[in-house]
Amino acid sequence: MTDYTLHCFLQSGNAYKAALMLQLAGADWKPQFVDFINGAHRSPEFRAINDMGEVPVLVDHTQGDLTLTQSGLILWHLADAFPQFAATNPVEHREVLRWILFDNHKMTGSLSIFRFLKVFMNKGDSPEAQFMKGRMVAALKTLNRRLDGRDWVAAPHCTIADISLAGYLYWPDQSEIDLADYQHIAKWLDRIAALPNYARPEDIMPASAEV
Amino acid sequence: MTDYTLHCFLQSGNAYKAALMLQLAGADWKPQFVDFINGAHRSPEFRAINDMGEVPVLVDHTQGDLTLTQSGLILWHLADAFPQFAATNPVEHREVLRWILFDNHKMTGSLSIFRFLKVFMNKGDSPEAQFMKGRMVAALKTLNRRLDGRDWVAAPHCTIADISLAGYLYWPDQSEIDLADYQHIAKWLDRIAALPNYARPEDIMPASAEV
Repeated sequence: MTDYTLHCFLQSGNAYKAALMLQLAGADWKPQFVDFINGAHRSPEFRAINDMGEVPVLVDHTQGDLTLTQSGLILWHLADAFPQFAATNPVEHREVLRWILFDNHKMTGSLSIFRFLKVFMNKGDSPEAQFMKGRMVAALKTLNRRLDGRDWVAAPHCTIADISLAGYLYWPDQSEIDLADYQHIAKWLDRIAALPNYARPEDIMPASAEV
Repeated sequence: MTDYTLHCFLQSGNAYKAALMLQLAGADWKPQFVDFINGAHRSPEFRAINDMGEVPVLVDHTQGDLTLTQSGLILWHLADAFPQFAATNPVEHREVLRWILFDNHKMTGSLSIFRFLKVFMNKGDSPEAQFMKGRMVAALKTLNRRLDGRDWVAAPHCTIADISLAGYLYWPDQSEIDLADYQHIAKWLDRIAALPNYARPEDIMPASAEV
C-alpha cells in the first residue's frame, strides 16, 4: 500500500503542483489517471469525490484515506507531512499563504486559461485568450519583481508557495512565455529543477489510462 | 489610536471582504481611501506597501503596525484575533482554506473581472467579458450546490470562507446575477446580512478622499 494516491493527468499544471511536491519530498505515492479530456471529472462519481469537479484529488492513505481537493490545500496538507517545504515562522507562514493565493487568483487564474484556450481549444488568438494572456503577463511581472534578489518566493528555502507558482511554468512554450523576458523567474525555475528528486510532468503523471 | 487601518475604496469587493470582517467582528477600525480609479495603487509609494499593487491593505496597529496584503491572508490573520469566524477543528480548517482558494481562483477570479469590464470599462458585451461571465456562472453553480442543505460554506457557523466568497455578491446587478437562479446563495447572503453589525459596502468604505 502506498502512502498517497494522486488523481491527475499529464496536461494539468494544477495536478503537477501536487505531483511535484510528492516527488520533491520523496513521498511514497502513485498517480491515478483521470480522463479529464473526455469529461470524467464532471461525472457524478467524480463529483462525489470532489464537489468542485476538478483535479487534482489527493487521497492520504496514512490518515484513513483522507481525501483532499484543490491544489493549494493539498500542498498545505503535505507541508505538515514534509516540513522541509513548510514555513518555519509566522512571517514565512503569511508569505506562503499570500503567494499561494496570488498563484490561484492571478497567475494560474490567467495562465491556465490562456494555455487551455490556446493548446486544447485552438483559440489562442481569440479576444478572450488574448485578454487572459495580458493578465498572465502582469502576473509574471509581479512574480519576476518578487524574485529579484531572492532565491525563493516566501522564505529562505523552497516552500509550497514556490511549488504552487511553478506548476504551470515548466511548459513556457505552451503559454507563449519567453523566459528571457523574466530572468529572475527563469533562474528560480532552474533552482527548483536542480532540487533532489525533481521530475518533469511527463515523467510522473499519466497521459492515458494505459500508462 | 484605532486597532486597524484598512486601505480600501468603495467599489472593491476584495476590500469589502476585509471591511465586512472587521465590521462583523466589531473591530475598532478605520478606512483609508485609495484612489484606485486614478491609479494610486500603481505608484511607487503604494508598491512599497504592497508589491502586488492591489487593495486591500490592512495595517494591524495592535501588532506593531504589521502590514498585510491579499484579502485571503487578511481574513486569515483576522480570524486569529476574532476566532468566532475561525475554523474550530482540522476538518473545518481544511474547508475554510479550500473555499477561500476557490473564491480567489474561480469566483472572484471571474466575477470581479466581468464586473470590472462591464461597470468600469463599458465592455460588458465584449468576448472577453462574456467569457468571464461564463466562468462566473460555473463558479456560482458550484457554490450554490455547496450551500444546498448547509447554512454556511465551511463549518456550522459563519467563517472567513463565507465572508471571502460573499465579498462581490452584494452587488448582483453589477454582475448581471439574478439571485433567483441561485436560491441557496440568496438565502446565505441574507443570513450574512442578518448577522450583528452587518453593513453594506457603501456604509463602511469611502468612495472618495473627502468621505
